Amino acid sequence: MTSMVQTTDLTGQMLIAGTPVRGAGREIRGIDPQTGSFLEPAYPYGDTSHVEAACAAAADAFGPYRNAPVEQRARFLEAIADNLDSSRDVLVERAHAESGLPVARLTGEVGRTSGQLRLFAGVLREGSWNQARIDPALPDREPLPRPDIRQRSVPLGPVAVFGASNFPLAFSVAGGDTASALAAGCPVVVKAHDAHPGTSELVGRAIAQAVTATGMPAGTFSLLYGYGPDLGSALVTDPRIKAVGFTGSRAGGMALVAAAAARPEPIPVYAEMSAINPVFLLRGALSARAADLARAFVGSLTMGSGQFCTNPGLVIAVDGPDLDAFVAAAAEAVAATAPTPMLTPGIAENFRTGVETLSGTAELIARGSDENAPAVSCRAALFGSDVPTFLATEALQAEVFGASGVIVRCADDAEMLRVAAEVEGQLTATVHAEESDHAKAGELLEILELKAGRILFNGWPTGVEVGHAMVHGGPFPSTSDSRTTSVGARAIERFLRPVCYQNAPKSLLPSAIADGNPDGMWRTVDGQLTKD
Amino acid sequence: MTSMVQTTDLTGQMLIAGTPVRGAGREIRGIDPQTGSFLEPAYPYGDTSHVEAACAAAADAFGPYRNAPVEQRARFLEAIADNLDSSRDVLVERAHAESGLPVARLTGEVGRTSGQLRLFAGVLREGSWNQARIDPALPDREPLPRPDIRQRSVPLGPVAVFGASNFPLAFSVAGGDTASALAAGCPVVVKAHDAHPGTSELVGRAIAQAVTATGMPAGTFSLLYGYGPDLGSALVTDPRIKAVGFTGSRAGGMALVAAAAARPEPIPVYAEMSAINPVFLLRGALSARAADLARAFVGSLTMGSGQFCTNPGLVIAVDGPDLDAFVAAAAEAVAATAPTPMLTPGIAENFRTGVETLSGTAELIARGSDENAPAVSCRAALFGSDVPTFLATEALQAEVFGASGVIVRCADDAEMLRVAAEVEGQLTATVHAEESDHAKAGELLEILELKAGRILFNGWPTGVEVGHAMVHGGPFPSTSDSRTTSVGARAIERFLRPVCYQNAPKSLLPSAIADGNPDGMWRTVDGQLTKD
Repeated sequence: MTSMVQTTDLTGQMLIAGTPVRGAGREIRGIDPQTGSFLEPAYPYGDTSHVEAACAAAADAFGPYRNAPVEQRARFLEAIADNLDSSRDVLVERAHAESGLPVARLTGEVGRTSGQLRLFAGVLREGSWNQARIDPALPDREPLPRPDIRQRSVPLGPVAVFGASNFPLAFSVAGGDTASALAAGCPVVVKAHDAHPGTSELVGRAIAQAVTATGMPAGTFSLLYGYGPDLGSALVTDPRIKAVGFTGSRAGGMALVAAAAARPEPIPVYAEMSAINPVFLLRGALSARAADLARAFVGSLTMGSGQFCTNPGLVIAVDGPDLDAFVAAAAEAVAATAPTPMLTPGIAENFRTGVETLSGTAELIARGSDENAPAVSCRAALFGSDVPTFLATEALQAEVFGASGVIVRCADDAEMLRVAAEVEGQLTATVHAEESDHAKAGELLEILELKAGRILFNGWPTGVEVGHAMVHGGPFPSTSDSRTTSVGARAIERFLRPVCYQNAPKSLLPSAIADGNPDGMWRTVDGQLTKD
Repeated sequence: MTSMVQTTDLTGQMLIAGTPVRGAGREIRGIDPQTGSFLEPAYPYGDTSHVEAACAAAADAFGPYRNAPVEQRARFLEAIADNLDSSRDVLVERAHAESGLPVARLTGEVGRTSGQLRLFAGVLREGSWNQARIDPALPDREPLPRPDIRQRSVPLGPVAVFGASNFPLAFSVAGGDTASALAAGCPVVVKAHDAHPGTSELVGRAIAQAVTATGMPAGTFSLLYGYGPDLGSALVTDPRIKAVGFTGSRAGGMALVAAAAARPEPIPVYAEMSAINPVFLLRGALSARAADLARAFVGSLTMGSGQFCTNPGLVIAVDGPDLDAFVAAAAEAVAATAPTPMLTPGIAENFRTGVETLSGTAELIARGSDENAPAVSCRAALFGSDVPTFLATEALQAEVFGASGVIVRCADDAEMLRVAAEVEGQLTATVHAEESDHAKAGELLEILELKAGRILFNGWPTGVEVGHAMVHGGPFPSTSDSRTTSVGARAIERFLRPVCYQNAPKSLLPSAIADGNPDGMWRTVDGQLTKD
């Protein structure tokens, strides 16, 4: 374990290729949502000169970084993970102060973040990410000989990452986008989220320390603070940046998509944006456990003040006494919910506005308590609607970031399937079903496969497992690119592209596609997977 | 073998979900480039009502088509291949009349097209395209149990394909885009290229016949004729279309990209657009075989009137007597080139304009003969330039579609590497190198890996092998999405997205991710490839 920084060390500086640099722009500070008070130190914004410096360093680093042995890259990721783990308490303390998220949750999030980095170290060593493919020469083929053709993956180039507000660790400076881009061989320039500048600095320093400790080029990582439409735009439009990772609002994501598409050389943007994560309660499940489902639903809805991309904001079920029981129990649970802090005053304000809009279009079922509310707080809200109103009302289908949900009562199964077919693309869709519901669940699954990246049964969507099979993504507008995932092993693919080598001299072939399989990994030879 | 249509059967009709439909718009006809005369029958353009009908049918077909057993889908692709092979002579006759391309080349292209369809049948049966991944549940994990998570790929939905002019078979109605989209489980709506309407009808009927013969839903395939900015736009912006495949000009591709991005639900566009395919002649190679290289270069440059996406339009080498010898031999070979037909009058006109523009900015080295020229013809052209002029002149770096090339003389190796670093993204890059050149070739390779989708040694880029390892793609502007290939097994990935299933009931799991691996294919279980 490397020794790590203390909260008291915070300097308010950016990190450009390992060097602390103080911005000269507007000063921002973290805000403690419990008290509404500002946290020290101030973080002055950087400007386009800092983007220029960070991108130049990233471009310089790209060659040596992508060509470093894969084992060294894996150790670099592990060194970051070690640094985060060894400063867990400091990270949790600062992240708690800046975000108001519970200490237990943040403690888990440190482990999730370091675990994610270690997952990618394992992915690197396993080697399938190379997509190594060899079609050997067939010199005697008629009418023409077949040349020797070999394919592998190469990194796209320096990547810009925009930290998210709601996971100050797992989707921020050293989060999934950074981890997967670094794993792919791409230097990373992070624009820190204003909501947690101190946490960002601590994590940035943990990465920079790992860069040095493992001998990576300094420009492999930089961390900037700045105004989105100014510094953020400059970052996305810098010609040296070749891809963008973003988690945040639909408006923010679409602005980046538009900026990236308007470049002389357009680049991919992986924006994870908005979802209401429909939950379908089938008849058998409702009949068997309406009250339990309601309590679990409200638990998932209000967890972390509802500030999850996978927050279940929409419940769909066929009307009847069982749904009445569910609604009654959910109303009771919501009413018993204490107010909890939200990440930022802006997010809390948007939540209030969103709930007001819903109040104008849907029946209010329950509100949480607002007694002893933190300075920046969330008061849970639950609404009801019917299918014709829901489908006709854009506001009811839009994400309200926070603990707000809508229960849609369907006249029959056909209406339920219609809602499934007409909602926009989602990160998740959830089905609660008993054995007796399986035929209907099968019909629903057909539709949901085309609507969501992850389909859960008899669970709740908050909580995204980091593993090899996870998909955290989905059709637009849940993300800007449904063909990918931002969590789990396959996230690395977002930052790679295939290259093939035709009749390359043996001495020039990268080891991934060299004769004799020196890396000992799975390769597709003549269309068949083999380790030969 | 199914019996197939005759040229004399041509009707001038579109095919919407298996039904011939006559358009009512402007009539187009194929043109024989040898004579400039029109070919019967007339093909009246369709309009947006035909787009509506084809997309509605494709949307209806999508469910049953994607859920058809994979073996049935493989047999469908093979049935198309059989139909093409069994009508080879008719196809070649009509394609030759419409395109002016040599009969031998077109005969090979039928085989390439049917071979491509059979490749995807094999890809389907092998199963790795499913990206099946299983992370089994860990009920005893602390602090939280791990749910059962399983991932597979699902098709995006109906796909619009825009046929290319230059491969009336292999990149057109039943070409790589159609084959890979159908393989992925996506219905296809093709907009035929105006350059070969008769060939398009013949191939369309071969597909429609296979749809019927293998019991696929009728809307699995439709073929439309129409004006790009009208019918083509309507197709790309139809909400039921979920992806687009295109091969053609940069302007055409970028118009589709813009239209797709402006949709309420943006969709991916795989546009293969423009490239000049640089060829680097290293010192040792030039010294050993300048004249041979020159003759082979001109052979590749003028093949098919230079109407290949991979046409080698740029040669880069260090100045000196060996390059002089190369230039002299190339000039001689170009001067000896007879004029050959071009695909369409418009393409020939663009070629003439392009060559004129080059004449104003570069030294003319040689022109081909124009004696006994076909009505619509290409007169080869070879130009010379130096590095400062080349890098400063946009026209010299733009693709001139046809047999036109530029030789760039470099003062030294450093200038050669600079050209490599500064050219735009390319489909291919070629290096001619002897053993003594390998160190320099290694330096060049580092740069070219980031510039091109395919890197060849001691060969010529025209001729794209259809296999498992091929990459026909590359950084912008050679394509709109460098992360993919439009030729070879991985082309199927363009039309798929991952979905994961969390704690799904066993009875509802698709076979690709069911317990016991009923499909007997490679799956990633807990991060390890296995057939268990």
